[in-house]
Amino acid sequence: MPMLPGLMQDAPLSIIDILRYAAVAHARQEIVSRNVDEPLWRYDYTSALDRTAQAAHWLTGLGIVAGDRISSLAWNTHRHFELFFAVPGIGAVLHTANPRLPDEHLIFTINHAGSRVLLLDRNMVEIVERIRPQLTSVEHVVLLTDAERTLPEWIGYEAAIADQPTNYDWPVPDENGGAFLCYTSGTTGDPKGVLYSHRSVVLHGFAAGLSGALGFSAFDVVMPCQSLYHATAWGLPFAGAMNGVKFVFPCDKFDGASLQELIRDESVTFSGGVPTIWTMYLDHLARTGGTPGSLKRVVIGGSAVPRDMAEAFETLGVKVQQIWGMTETSPLGVISTPTPAVAALGQGEENEIIWTRQGRMQFGIELRIIDDAGKPLPHDGEQSGALLVRGPWVLKRYYRAEAPAIDADGWFDTGDICTIDPYGFMRITDRKKDVIKSGGEWISSIDLENAAAGCPGVKVAAVAGVYHPKWEERPIMLIERHDGADVGEETIRAHLAGHVAKWWMPDRIFFESVPLTATGKIDKKVIRDRHADALK
Amino acid sequence: MPMLPGLMQDAPLSIIDILRYAAVAHARQEIVSRNVDEPLWRYDYTSALDRTAQAAHWLTGLGIVAGDRISSLAWNTHRHFELFFAVPGIGAVLHTANPRLPDEHLIFTINHAGSRVLLLDRNMVEIVERIRPQLTSVEHVVLLTDAERTLPEWIGYEAAIADQPTNYDWPVPDENGGAFLCYTSGTTGDPKGVLYSHRSVVLHGFAAGLSGALGFSAFDVVMPCQSLYHATAWGLPFAGAMNGVKFVFPCDKFDGASLQELIRDESVTFSGGVPTIWTMYLDHLARTGGTPGSLKRVVIGGSAVPRDMAEAFETLGVKVQQIWGMTETSPLGVISTPTPAVAALGQGEENEIIWTRQGRMQFGIELRIIDDAGKPLPHDGEQSGALLVRGPWVLKRYYRAEAPAIDADGWFDTGDICTIDPYGFMRITDRKKDVIKSGGEWISSIDLENAAAGCPGVKVAAVAGVYHPKWEERPIMLIERHDGADVGEETIRAHLAGHVAKWWMPDRIFFESVPLTATGKIDKKVIRDRHADALK
Repeated sequence: MPMLPGLMQDAPLSIIDILRYAAVAHARQEIVSRNVDEPLWRYDYTSALDRTAQAAHWLTGLGIVAGDRISSLAWNTHRHFELFFAVPGIGAVLHTANPRLPDEHLIFTINHAGSRVLLLDRNMVEIVERIRPQLTSVEHVVLLTDAERTLPEWIGYEAAIADQPTNYDWPVPDENGGAFLCYTSGTTGDPKGVLYSHRSVVLHGFAAGLSGALGFSAFDVVMPCQSLYHATAWGLPFAGAMNGVKFVFPCDKFDGASLQELIRDESVTFSGGVPTIWTMYLDHLARTGGTPGSLKRVVIGGSAVPRDMAEAFETLGVKVQQIWGMTETSPLGVISTPTPAVAALGQGEENEIIWTRQGRMQFGIELRIIDDAGKPLPHDGEQSGALLVRGPWVLKRYYRAEAPAIDADGWFDTGDICTIDPYGFMRITDRKKDVIKSGGEWISSIDLENAAAGCPGVKVAAVAGVYHPKWEERPIMLIERHDGADVGEETIRAHLAGHVAKWWMPDRIFFESVPLTATGKIDKKVIRDRHADALK
Repeated sequence: MPMLPGLMQDAPLSIIDILRYAAVAHARQEIVSRNVDEPLWRYDYTSALDRTAQAAHWLTGLGIVAGDRISSLAWNTHRHFELFFAVPGIGAVLHTANPRLPDEHLIFTINHAGSRVLLLDRNMVEIVERIRPQLTSVEHVVLLTDAERTLPEWIGYEAAIADQPTNYDWPVPDENGGAFLCYTSGTTGDPKGVLYSHRSVVLHGFAAGLSGALGFSAFDVVMPCQSLYHATAWGLPFAGAMNGVKFVFPCDKFDGASLQELIRDESVTFSGGVPTIWTMYLDHLARTGGTPGSLKRVVIGGSAVPRDMAEAFETLGVKVQQIWGMTETSPLGVISTPTPAVAALGQGEENEIIWTRQGRMQFGIELRIIDDAGKPLPHDGEQSGALLVRGPWVLKRYYRAEAPAIDADGWFDTGDICTIDPYGFMRITDRKKDVIKSGGEWISSIDLENAAAGCPGVKVAAVAGVYHPKWEERPIMLIERHDGADVGEETIRAHLAGHVAKWWMPDRIFFESVPLTATGKIDKKVIRDRHADALK
């Protein structure tokens, strides 16, 4: 289409510009960080930019150039935050390795990234000593620790950057150049790398900051409890700094007491993470009689929000919202913030929608649901289909892959099955591979889990389809009880009867611990393998 | 810099995508519009997209293709809103002509744009009949009116689009392609065209929606009282639709009673515009004893906010914020939303900063102040210098100009003189051409005006420098009184004595009406010409 060329500036979107902005516009805003066995760190955006410049000088001095990859094995700390800007700032790529992966996958990702430098937190030393001999590209291994706590024969980050200049002549990047490399942790096959660009990160940061998504303001105190190594923690470092929030980084101290200490002492208003963490937090409050103080919002992703958790937070004056996304979507897909149309239904119905849908559509990422024939389905909240997404922060191809990950029209198949309602809210009814095909009809394993999770005494419920001689597949259920709870099969069945169709009732219920993947999700593959013969 | 190519989607930013998003994610959200002598119009985003598609089909049917220009001479209405999406949607460029320009400038802009179609509101017929013979490129002239009110021998918009299909296969634009052509109304020389691209408009929309700027949510009801033909009314149509706001368009009915009717009936929460409109509105409330009801925020741009206006709104529970920008900056430059650092100073000091600064820095547009030698000045709130700006929604060149409008590093000289304080707030102390050079020292005409405007009885104060035989230039002041006020020279001088340095005192004070430019700003050139010999 031969358009008239626009005459606005050719200014590429650049990640370091976010921190440079915060350092002048929110100069004295605080950043507080726990670290592995160090005192609480406290500084401001201006100092963070100074130290980011020092890190950039140090990396450049090591011979790191644009296009190189660097791996971090690090928790949610201020040093990791600095690397989020220093590495893309010099045109290099930060691979945020996932320490929860099995050794073989961790080694695979670092070698696949071809990283020249590996930076790790102190309590990852054991892992790195174990895998080091198999790392094929790493030239420098550096401990993210202060000078006095650096182990003998290791290089420490603080010592390395200490004498570097505090300003850096940041190059202007190609906005489509790579900035972050995040691997998915598929339960089958090798992990796959998603290579975020400066453009995708900045656009995602803009979108994530809007009121319909995270809605940050400079008055927010944001404590990311989702890992920085998971899809850049929903892009919080970028959306947060763009909006001048105060950051509170909890390192890897996600137990209830540690979180509560930071929430109270630092006046945290916003946090987010997987449900497990918030279960621990609510348990802690219940045990100690504590209150969440300034905490206003908890955004929960990774798996569905248990209703009793949402209600418990509601009672404490904290809004719970869901978020859905994938590494492949940077990760913002949808988030369950209210709209006037939903609010008009009344508080009860609003809560129902906010708590049971993954979220509503956000500008910048298109959603489409299609049936088996590829035909788009209506947004009626009833018909479920395969969820496709498209947009500037959705991947087009995995790193080092030859085939595109999207179809000819740009749609990426998420592997999720969902509905979209007339209010624009999306609800995942299953993973494509987890939906249970019983006699030609579909049973949603997630709906079954949610129903069971609402039964008092149930900590986690997991459902999977296993082979059945007559119906092809039938659901089985695993129940993990809360400590001290004695809920039994009869109670579960009675509870389910009130919530799901009779033919959805699981054929077997097992009381045992639920296996989780490296990212904390229910590992259905393990369940299917473990109970493959349960209904034979 | 040879970076690793990122692997995210090559999805161009596109203006029509904003409305397409709102039409699915906020389908039933209302858009209400006054129109010239028609009943109130009321529909929703889905219908707006349908009609936008119809307009696109109609334009395509006229032979309009990508790259063509179309001029609008229109007020703030739903039809103008539709053109904001339909025209860029087909890859063409919307030139939003300014009906307040003198004929000669209006003719110049339409011819300079080379527009093939001219769409006008009914009360612009007289203008168009007058200038039509001098329009060199216009092939079609269309009235933005319904079928029954179309004048004989005119084509009406409603009749034209009525039978068109309600969906359109929107092409994917080059994001750097032109979308809007807005002319500056310089007081000297021909107007200059700024050609916004899809990219600049979408990025600006993201930034404008953030909490530190306009901070829109789907719960906002936004009534733009700045003209759509002025730099796309701060980009409100885009930032608003991205966030799913309800829009209320007031047409050209900016009198107090008309605004109050919409504010009360439609539960308006947000509005913005030049101070003149809000003076009329506050007068109306004072006369009628009305209250602003749901109105929460009024953002004022174009000229400085009079303190008594800010205080009057404060008393009524409405926050007043300033915004600064130019046609050349799309227009968002800075906006005076509070930060924690400013709030920590206490409400009095916060108000002082919010009301007396143009605003604080926003992510995406860099600010720099330099001295006469081009050296950057510190952000101390004291030293004033020439304001330069840079970023993806700042122009690089005027339309059909050969020379760039920016320097080699991308900086655009705004022509304003300002300070930036340590909190990141910018305060304009003068226009470069208006600053008064008295014996080698600078006097801020704006500071003098603001000081005088605080004197009871003063409606508008204007200050300009005129020739002085001894001091080179000295200030003179024009005072326009409120109806019925009898404030005199002695009172003004006594008031000024408490606010400005003695040597800033104007040499002469005239009580007469203040000349305004076509955009409602004080026309200092006219004042300087009128009183050129005042101090000889």
